Amino acid sequence: MYEKLKQQVLPQLIVPGSRVLMAVSGGPDSMALAHILWRYVKEMKEQKITLVITHVHHGVREESDDEEKMVKSMARDWEIPCLIHRFDSKEYAKSVGKSFQTAAREWRYACWKEDMRKENCTLLATAHHLGDQAETVLYRLLRGSGTAGLAGIYPQKGELIRPLLSVTKEDILEYCRNENLPYALDCSNEEPIYARNKIRLQLLPELQREYNPKIVETLGRTAEVLRWDEEYLEEGVRAAWKKFAIFSTEHRVGLRGTIFDLPKAMLSRLIRRAATLVSGEPRGIAFHYVEQVMASQGQVGWSQDLPGLKIEIDYQGVWFQRADWGQYINESAGILSPSLPIDANWGEWIPWRDREGQNWQVGLFSLENEADDEDYPGQCVDKVFFDGQGLIRNGDKLQWRYRRDGDSLWIAGLGHKSLKKVFQDAKVPANQRQEIPLLALENEILWIPGVKRGDRYPLRQGGGAVGVLVKR
Amino acid sequence: MYEKLKQQVLPQLIVPGSRVLMAVSGGPDSMALAHILWRYVKEMKEQKITLVITHVHHGVREESDDEEKMVKSMARDWEIPCLIHRFDSKEYAKSVGKSFQTAAREWRYACWKEDMRKENCTLLATAHHLGDQAETVLYRLLRGSGTAGLAGIYPQKGELIRPLLSVTKEDILEYCRNENLPYALDCSNEEPIYARNKIRLQLLPELQREYNPKIVETLGRTAEVLRWDEEYLEEGVRAAWKKFAIFSTEHRVGLRGTIFDLPKAMLSRLIRRAATLVSGEPRGIAFHYVEQVMASQGQVGWSQDLPGLKIEIDYQGVWFQRADWGQYINESAGILSPSLPIDANWGEWIPWRDREGQNWQVGLFSLENEADDEDYPGQCVDKVFFDGQGLIRNGDKLQWRYRRDGDSLWIAGLGHKSLKKVFQDAKVPANQRQEIPLLALENEILWIPGVKRGDRYPLRQGGGAVGVLVKR
Repeated sequence: MYEKLKQQVLPQLIVPGSRVLMAVSGGPDSMALAHILWRYVKEMKEQKITLVITHVHHGVREESDDEEKMVKSMARDWEIPCLIHRFDSKEYAKSVGKSFQTAAREWRYACWKEDMRKENCTLLATAHHLGDQAETVLYRLLRGSGTAGLAGIYPQKGELIRPLLSVTKEDILEYCRNENLPYALDCSNEEPIYARNKIRLQLLPELQREYNPKIVETLGRTAEVLRWDEEYLEEGVRAAWKKFAIFSTEHRVGLRGTIFDLPKAMLSRLIRRAATLVSGEPRGIAFHYVEQVMASQGQVGWSQDLPGLKIEIDYQGVWFQRADWGQYINESAGILSPSLPIDANWGEWIPWRDREGQNWQVGLFSLENEADDEDYPGQCVDKVFFDGQGLIRNGDKLQWRYRRDGDSLWIAGLGHKSLKKVFQDAKVPANQRQEIPLLALENEILWIPGVKRGDRYPLRQGGGAVGVLVKR
Repeated sequence: MYEKLKQQVLPQLIVPGSRVLMAVSGGPDSMALAHILWRYVKEMKEQKITLVITHVHHGVREESDDEEKMVKSMARDWEIPCLIHRFDSKEYAKSVGKSFQTAAREWRYACWKEDMRKENCTLLATAHHLGDQAETVLYRLLRGSGTAGLAGIYPQKGELIRPLLSVTKEDILEYCRNENLPYALDCSNEEPIYARNKIRLQLLPELQREYNPKIVETLGRTAEVLRWDEEYLEEGVRAAWKKFAIFSTEHRVGLRGTIFDLPKAMLSRLIRRAATLVSGEPRGIAFHYVEQVMASQGQVGWSQDLPGLKIEIDYQGVWFQRADWGQYINESAGILSPSLPIDANWGEWIPWRDREGQNWQVGLFSLENEADDEDYPGQCVDKVFFDGQGLIRNGDKLQWRYRRDGDSLWIAGLGHKSLKKVFQDAKVPANQRQEIPLLALENEILWIPGVKRGDRYPLRQGGGAVGVLVKR
C-alpha cells in the first residue's frame, strides 16, 4: 500500500515545499496517515515537505485523555510540531441549532483553518478512506442526489487533500499492524444509530455479502468516474454562466431567457446555481423547484415564490431575487450597495453605476476565458492580472465592496499604503472615493479598478486570473 | 395518474399519426399500459394514433394459456389487432449460450421488431415503471457503473417508448382496481433467486423501511438527472470524436494523440468508444483497461494487448485494432473491404481508396455539425441531405458497403431502379462500379457518393443529416 501511495498518489497531491497540516484523531486511519506522510517526507528529503499535527480533544469520552497522550507522544518521537485543541462538545451542541455531528465537524474545520494560518501550512490532510467514500456515495444515493453528490468525497479540493481515499479500511488496519502503530477505537462510530453508521455497519456488509464482495471498491470507482463527469459538467456551467448571466449579485441574478434552449444538464445547473447564489443556501433549492422553473419553458410573465427567493421571467430574462431584495436596492449608488460586499465569483460581471449615472461592469475571469479589448471595443478601461492559484489557495473570501476605514494597498518595496494616500496620489476627488468598487481580500485591497492595483498575487507561470473593468 | 400521463407524458412520446405496438404480457403493468393507451387514442381521435398488441406465450408456466386468452379477449373487446407468438423457452435456453432471462429478452425484442415491420408500426411501447427504474439503478450501482448506467432506463430511445416510467407499481395496481382490469401475476418474478428479483423483493423494501420511505421516487429522480448529464456528455463525445478520430472502421480506429489533453470525462469515453467499436463488445472493455490506457498518458511506443483488441500509440495517434485485424487488411481495395460492411456511425469519417490510389473520405453528419466546403476547401466533392430523424426511426443498420447483387436505388415517381442502370446512366465504367462505397439500409441504397442519391428520406423540417464525400 505504501509503495503505491508513494509512487502514484502522494506526488500528485503534495508539491515540493508544501507544509502539510495533518488532522490526527488517534484512530487507525489518521495514525496510519501520519505515519505514511512522515515516512514519505523522510524518504523524499529533497522535496522539502514539512508536517504539522493537529489533534482535537473532544472531551465526550473518557478515552479522550489517553488519545491526546498517544498523539502527543507520537509527534514527539517523530519530531513533528503538534497542536492540541479542546472542544467542549456538550456546551457547543446546546448553543447552536445543529446536530452535534454537524456542529463538531464545522468547529474542527474552522480550527484547522486557523492552525494552517498560524503554522503557514499550504495543505490540510485528512484520513478519509475508500470505505468512507462508499458510505458517502450510498448515503447520498439514499437521500437523493445527482452526479455532483454521487461523485462523493474528492481526493483534493483546494488546499484539502485525502491521501488515503483509494485505500480500504482493511489495508489501513494491516498497515497499522505491520508498522506496530498504536491507535484508539472510537466507540461512537460503532453504534448504528446515525444513518451513516447504519450504512457502514449494516448496509455495506449486507451488500458485500449478498451482491458484490468488492462493493467498496466498486462504489469508489463509481465516485471517481462521476467526479470526472462532474468536473466536465462544471466547466460547461462556468462557460454557460459567462455567456448567459446578465446580472449577478448575491441578492439578484439575471439569466438570459435563451437558457431554456440549453440541454437540460446545463439549464438545471444554471437554475440551481442562480438560486443558490441568491438564497444563500449552500445546498441550493430542492430539485422539484428546479423542475418547476424548467417547466415554465421561459414563458414571459411566469413568476414563482420559492422559499427565500422569488423568480420572475420578463422580456430581458429570468430573474432570481431574494425574498427581501427590496431592502438592498440603492438607486443612487447603483447595484453594489455600500453596506453589502458581493462575493467576487469568477467569471461574473458585477454591474455598478457611478455618481454621473455611468454604468460600469467589473469582473474577475480565469485566463483561458480572458476577456480582452476585442470583446469590448473601446470600452475596456482597466485590466490587471493576478496569480489565480494563489488567490484560491489563500482561502479568504474575495469580495467586491466599497471602501472602509483602515483599508490599504500593499505596494512592493514600500509596504502598506493607505487608500486615502492612493486616492490622493491618483487625484481622485474625495466625494468619488466612496463609490469605486474595490477587489478585496478581507482588509487587504487588491485592486482599485481604474485607479491602481496592489502588488499582492502577481501573475505567475501556471494558472492566472484577470480583472477587467468595462464601461457598458 | 391517467390525467398526468395524458397531459404531460403521452403527447411527448407519441406524435400524431403514430402506430404503436404494445408489448402485453398480461401482467398488471402491461394491462394498465394497454388500457391507458387505448383510452388515450379514443379521447384524442384527431391525433389519428393506432394501436397493435403483441403477446408472447412463454409456455413455461401452466397459466400461459389463460394469459393468452385474457389478452386476446381484451384485444377483441377494444378492437385492437393482436399478434401472438409462441416461445419454446426450454428448447431455446438449451440451444444458446446465454442465461434464460437474457435469451428470452433478446428473442422478444427481435420478435417485436419483426411485428413492427409487418404492421407498419412506428413505436414500440413497453410497460416499465418507476419500480423497474429504481431496481435498474441499484442493480447497476451494485455491479459497478458510471453516469451512463446509473441513468437507468430511458423513457424514449429511438422507436422504443416507456410511457409508465414515471409511475409507481402501487399507482398501476390502483389503476387496475379502479378500472376493473383483469391481470395475471407472474410467479417467477416473485422468487428472489435472480439478483434483480432479490433487489426488488428484499433490498428495495429494506431501504424503504430503514432509510427513505420514498426510495423508489428518489432513485427515479437520480436516474432522470443523470440521464440529462449523460446526454450532455454524449453530445460532447460526438463533437470530440469528430475532432479527434483520424480513422474509423469497425476493425481499426485511430484517435489523435492529443486526446490525452482532454478532460478525463471525455478521454475515458473516447477510449471506451473506440474499444467498443473495434472489439464489437456492446458493453466495451472493462473499466480497469480504460484506466490502463489513460495511465499511458499518450506516450509514443506504448502498447497493450487487451481481450479481443490491441492498442498502440505512435506519432500519428492512438490505434485500436482487432486482435485479428490482419485478415481485414486489403491493400488494393483500400480500407473499406468488399466483404465487410461498416456501420455508418454518425459523425465518423470512413476512409476509402479508389483504383487510381486516390484517398477519399465519406461520412454522415448531423446538420448542426454540417461539414461544409469551408472545412475542406475545394475538396468536398458531393454533399446530400437526409431526414436524420427518419433514418433513426427506421431502426435498420445504416451501413457503408460495396455493391451487391440486387441493390437498387428508389427514385421518386419512378420507383426502384437497379444500380446497374444507375451506373450506366451516370457513365461510370463497369470496372469501377464495384469500388464505390454505398450508403445502404439493408438492400436499399440511399446514396452513391459522387454519383447519385435516392429519394428516400428527403430532408424535412426538424432534424436532418448530411452525407459528405471529400478527397483527402
